[in-house]
Amino acid sequence: MSQSIRRIVLASRPVGPPKPANFRLEEVPMPEVPNDHVLLETIYLSLDPYMRGRMSDAKSYVDPIAIDDVMVGATVSRIKQSRNLNWKEGDIVVGSSGWQTHAISDGSDLRGIDPHAAPMSTGLGVLGMTGFSAYAGLRNIGRPKPRETVVVAAASGAVGSVVGQLARIDGARIGIAGGAEKCAFVKNELGFDAAIDHCDPDFAQQLAEACPDGIDVYFENVGGAVWDAVLPLLNNFGRVPLCGTISHYNDEALGPPSVDRLPASIKVIQQKSITVRGFMNVEFIAQHTTFLEEAAGWVADGMLKYREDIVDGLDNAPTAFIGLLEGRNFGKLIVRV
Amino acid sequence: MSQSIRRIVLASRPVGPPKPANFRLEEVPMPEVPNDHVLLETIYLSLDPYMRGRMSDAKSYVDPIAIDDVMVGATVSRIKQSRNLNWKEGDIVVGSSGWQTHAISDGSDLRGIDPHAAPMSTGLGVLGMTGFSAYAGLRNIGRPKPRETVVVAAASGAVGSVVGQLARIDGARIGIAGGAEKCAFVKNELGFDAAIDHCDPDFAQQLAEACPDGIDVYFENVGGAVWDAVLPLLNNFGRVPLCGTISHYNDEALGPPSVDRLPASIKVIQQKSITVRGFMNVEFIAQHTTFLEEAAGWVADGMLKYREDIVDGLDNAPTAFIGLLEGRNFGKLIVRV
Repeated sequence: MSQSIRRIVLASRPVGPPKPANFRLEEVPMPEVPNDHVLLETIYLSLDPYMRGRMSDAKSYVDPIAIDDVMVGATVSRIKQSRNLNWKEGDIVVGSSGWQTHAISDGSDLRGIDPHAAPMSTGLGVLGMTGFSAYAGLRNIGRPKPRETVVVAAASGAVGSVVGQLARIDGARIGIAGGAEKCAFVKNELGFDAAIDHCDPDFAQQLAEACPDGIDVYFENVGGAVWDAVLPLLNNFGRVPLCGTISHYNDEALGPPSVDRLPASIKVIQQKSITVRGFMNVEFIAQHTTFLEEAAGWVADGMLKYREDIVDGLDNAPTAFIGLLEGRNFGKLIVRV
Repeated sequence: MSQSIRRIVLASRPVGPPKPANFRLEEVPMPEVPNDHVLLETIYLSLDPYMRGRMSDAKSYVDPIAIDDVMVGATVSRIKQSRNLNWKEGDIVVGSSGWQTHAISDGSDLRGIDPHAAPMSTGLGVLGMTGFSAYAGLRNIGRPKPRETVVVAAASGAVGSVVGQLARIDGARIGIAGGAEKCAFVKNELGFDAAIDHCDPDFAQQLAEACPDGIDVYFENVGGAVWDAVLPLLNNFGRVPLCGTISHYNDEALGPPSVDRLPASIKVIQQKSITVRGFMNVEFIAQHTTFLEEAAGWVADGMLKYREDIVDGLDNAPTAFIGLLEGRNFGKLIVRV
């Protein structure tokens, strides 16, 4: 193999929103494939908000990406060369090659997918980790009961779109807060009961009107103003699965003087016996096989719809990722490498 | 009966800290005892922070106290006259007569106690609802495992003192944040591993040093600066039973411009998969009998110690209650009526 690998590494840690200069495109020689390993050729790369966290050196479950290391990320790849008995050339797998055209794997992080059952890109979205985040948070923490009201922010996004549809499959009513022009998609395509634009000045009032019985489950993956509108509507024993707060991922520290919203939030949580529970889907990984079986069935039946926003070319990954943090994508953001 | 009832009613809703003028002492004629009812003579009245919430008309589980209605509260009473087959004159009961010298009850809210088993005032504290709040929150939400670190604020108080001792009974290590001169009591009398004074300027650093393995359970009943010191120390999968936020009970609305602490809190809760769970003990009332059995045994064994701050005279209840919200009591605050 005379080819080289093209890859994007973390050049520097962002302060506030990531800039193109925080990334560096490199070309390195294609390595030899060690015994028991495979060479993967990346077809699709998933771009997800959690990557912003990995670019910082804040404490979390997982270590930050080191400077000069390849950006992490889930991928769909073709096995280009195999020296591992479990995999053969041409197999399509979901793995974690990161932001690069090729990678070596010992196979332990790979999961084979059938490219004829569903478009292979779904292995990164509705049938991938974002779909599983929605499933895990809703099933384990949100636990909507029939006729309860479930609200999800970023409703057209990779996680939010699945949350709302799963809530519908569970038989629960759904009130929704989504992005501007995305509301029609959320309501008409995804079949949510209501879609509310958080850019509207009277957003909070619209949300209250759409939720006459209050809110039982708020799936939080945005933060900011949506939280403030949801808080007074939460019912006693409400559940708030906390999947992420994309609106704050670029915050570096406590902001400029403003109003401290914490005491009011804590007071509501206490007085209404609310559960606020942060989670990452790895905690519930034992349910992953069940999720894949169920979700694949729903996708095949048309019960679970999805929308992907596919960007061409690895070189465009940094710009696409920066846009993701600003909400510029429309559906699950994927790079066709 | 020619006697009259003396009682304290809610004269007006407080704005900020309650003032004596928000209360009014009244004298009303002693009513006739209806068939199947009893007349109760109040011996002890419990004063608790939750009463501040009931004085406001904010939404909660329970309705606010109406203007001109008697202030609510748990009481230990003697049955003075009985027209109910289940109770006889002289029986000692825990009930909910509120801030008054006498009350009529149909018996459904009464629980008999044996005044020889433990001092009858304990029915309002360590063997009453505050003890049960500690038990319910720790057993159902905090769930400390052996060798985990449990931190509780207001550690010398009615709830906090029981939380810490229950954590010790469960075999867990205990780091503690308490009030100024109360620290010695918390450490020496109650047997906590550490007692830290939240008035000390280097409080946060002392807390960090006392919790070298981080914090697994933070029993929140204070709010404010203690929360900020605890937050960075919370471990992955930490649990925060939210029993109250006494430091904010007098807040009327969002305060003056300051730093918004909410985004940073939400971020930590999400990144560390923390559970924050508000609760009131009524939710777990099915466990009350078990609690009473267990706790009475621990009190008898000396495993569970308590301190009461007893004020004489119903007239002094408003001032004592105002002081409670400022942390001026030392132990469970009780009025000897």
